[in-house]
Amino acid sequence: MSLYWWQNPCQPLDHVARNKALARQQQLTKPAGSLGQLEQVAVHLAALQGSERPSVTQLWISIFAADHGVVAEGVSAFPQAVTGQMLRNFVTGGAAISVLARQLDAALEVVDLGTAVPLEALPGVRHLHVGAGTQNFLRGPAMTVAQVLIALEAGRDSVQRARQAGAELFIGGEMGIGNTTSATALACCLLGCPVAELVGPGTGLDEAGVARKCAVIEAALALHGPASDGPLDVLVRLGGFEVAALVGAYLACAQHGVPALVDGFICSVAALLAQRLNPDCRDWLLFAHRGAEPGHQRVLQALQAEPLLALGLRLGEGSGAALAVPLLQLACRLHNDMATFAEAAVAERPA
Amino acid sequence: MSLYWWQNPCQPLDHVARNKALARQQQLTKPAGSLGQLEQVAVHLAALQGSERPSVTQLWISIFAADHGVVAEGVSAFPQAVTGQMLRNFVTGGAAISVLARQLDAALEVVDLGTAVPLEALPGVRHLHVGAGTQNFLRGPAMTVAQVLIALEAGRDSVQRARQAGAELFIGGEMGIGNTTSATALACCLLGCPVAELVGPGTGLDEAGVARKCAVIEAALALHGPASDGPLDVLVRLGGFEVAALVGAYLACAQHGVPALVDGFICSVAALLAQRLNPDCRDWLLFAHRGAEPGHQRVLQALQAEPLLALGLRLGEGSGAALAVPLLQLACRLHNDMATFAEAAVAERPA
Repeated sequence: MSLYWWQNPCQPLDHVARNKALARQQQLTKPAGSLGQLEQVAVHLAALQGSERPSVTQLWISIFAADHGVVAEGVSAFPQAVTGQMLRNFVTGGAAISVLARQLDAALEVVDLGTAVPLEALPGVRHLHVGAGTQNFLRGPAMTVAQVLIALEAGRDSVQRARQAGAELFIGGEMGIGNTTSATALACCLLGCPVAELVGPGTGLDEAGVARKCAVIEAALALHGPASDGPLDVLVRLGGFEVAALVGAYLACAQHGVPALVDGFICSVAALLAQRLNPDCRDWLLFAHRGAEPGHQRVLQALQAEPLLALGLRLGEGSGAALAVPLLQLACRLHNDMATFAEAAVAERPA
Repeated sequence: MSLYWWQNPCQPLDHVARNKALARQQQLTKPAGSLGQLEQVAVHLAALQGSERPSVTQLWISIFAADHGVVAEGVSAFPQAVTGQMLRNFVTGGAAISVLARQLDAALEVVDLGTAVPLEALPGVRHLHVGAGTQNFLRGPAMTVAQVLIALEAGRDSVQRARQAGAELFIGGEMGIGNTTSATALACCLLGCPVAELVGPGTGLDEAGVARKCAVIEAALALHGPASDGPLDVLVRLGGFEVAALVGAYLACAQHGVPALVDGFICSVAALLAQRLNPDCRDWLLFAHRGAEPGHQRVLQALQAEPLLALGLRLGEGSGAALAVPLLQLACRLHNDMATFAEAAVAERPA
């Protein structure tokens, strides 16, 4: 057993269930392959769940929120107080993800890892007090190693609660003013990409704002150097508490056999970090959408991910993943409930 | 009033409701525009329904099925008997659209406009007997003008039933062995495109099959000449009963103020014909997905349509439209139920 829990083995795929599901797909009353990506999703879920007939009815959503010290450099369109205000909005039901969770009948958990502005205890929010936001990574490491370990475990703990609640699908979401800056820095460092190719407006910077954000990230990457000490060090230097929690959650999902549906740019960067820390976790990650942030496409490519949606979303909160849930559910229902050629007495395509 | 019902005026958009919905979108607790296409969809539905807070709960699906004489030229991977077999499968509940209609709690109507192989009356199917399938359009016109008029009215009648059932959204689907050949011929004729650019495998032709299909369509277009006599004549010469029914349905939707969600390639060609017959109908057509058939992209471009999904679907039956319904419903719920900045006491982005 490794000293680092995330290096422990991931659950294997069930190839017997996969092959049975694949054979079933070929027998359903439709031209082979005519349901496109939904066929692949159903077969993949069968392999993950070890069942010829998969199901994603029980849903769990954990939103991880935290603040970012780099906001001091003027990299966000919104003031930092919004992180705390949105935490309230999540639990009082007015945020996008709150509306979506209600519609999908999903359990919604809100985890505050640490805001810059101190908050009174909010009913329905788990306050973990990892720190008063991260440090400004233009001046030094964003986090201590201890903080990253605590945040990784916070993600793992959420997956543990999801499992206890019987979740068949885990969605991680994030909220944190400035977190596209952190995610862009992480992605550029991990992928060795020029910042200008990945940087974008986040929640709504104008052109001058994007240029400033680009310069800040370039300076930070120059300060911290290349990713030669491995993904954990990159996360310590440039990450955020909520990013680390998502990394821990995805790794725990893979180790405990819970499929995870990855949301937008920030979640995809967390997925990339998770893959770098334990490559076998990749099988357990489904990708919901390709968002508007330019860096998202590159991170998805690096993960060889083919997301289900491309709606120009750039909200976060897990909202894009929640929007893709009905497609997963309908993919399962089609797979499970359609008649076979034999059952319906429909002629198969001649060989 | 015109001699041709489809030239009668379409319902106007409600610009007051549209502007109210647009103003509401700007006040919801999210960065402006961060829900991408879903914001545009909600605002458009508000304009169509004349309500600041739109809803698409009541769904109606009409499947139009018919056979095609051009199948004699060997243009399909499946035998023609499948059209009748699938009609049974629709009403016994084993087809993809049957499964989706159940999951969405949608009314599902199945209309048989005419199969090549005579069918006994199937419980739950409306048999209209427009003809024993169309004629082979490589030898002459596919239909008579009278048949097209009957098929257009059949589509209009379906919309009438949908309205009586209180439908807030109309989905038309199609089934007919050989109908991608008809749709490709129609699209090439209407758009003035080379057949080789639009032709595709349909339900699963191999490369030689696609080449044969291409040659058949090219020969038919040479026989019938350009679209100089207008869209109705093109439909008579190259169309199918189910395509004409879809055209009639889309036109009736626009005239009676029922938003229509357009499915795949064949439905989009019907939408293009509807637009050519009465351009104002375009506002009432929402587009569900970009399918795998190469011609679909070109037809969508001609309609300036931006569909919600691109999953590599090529099934028809209205299945792609049904799969997009949850996105429309969630777009409405987000629009209607999210808190405003003022309600949630969240700081707006500084001007």
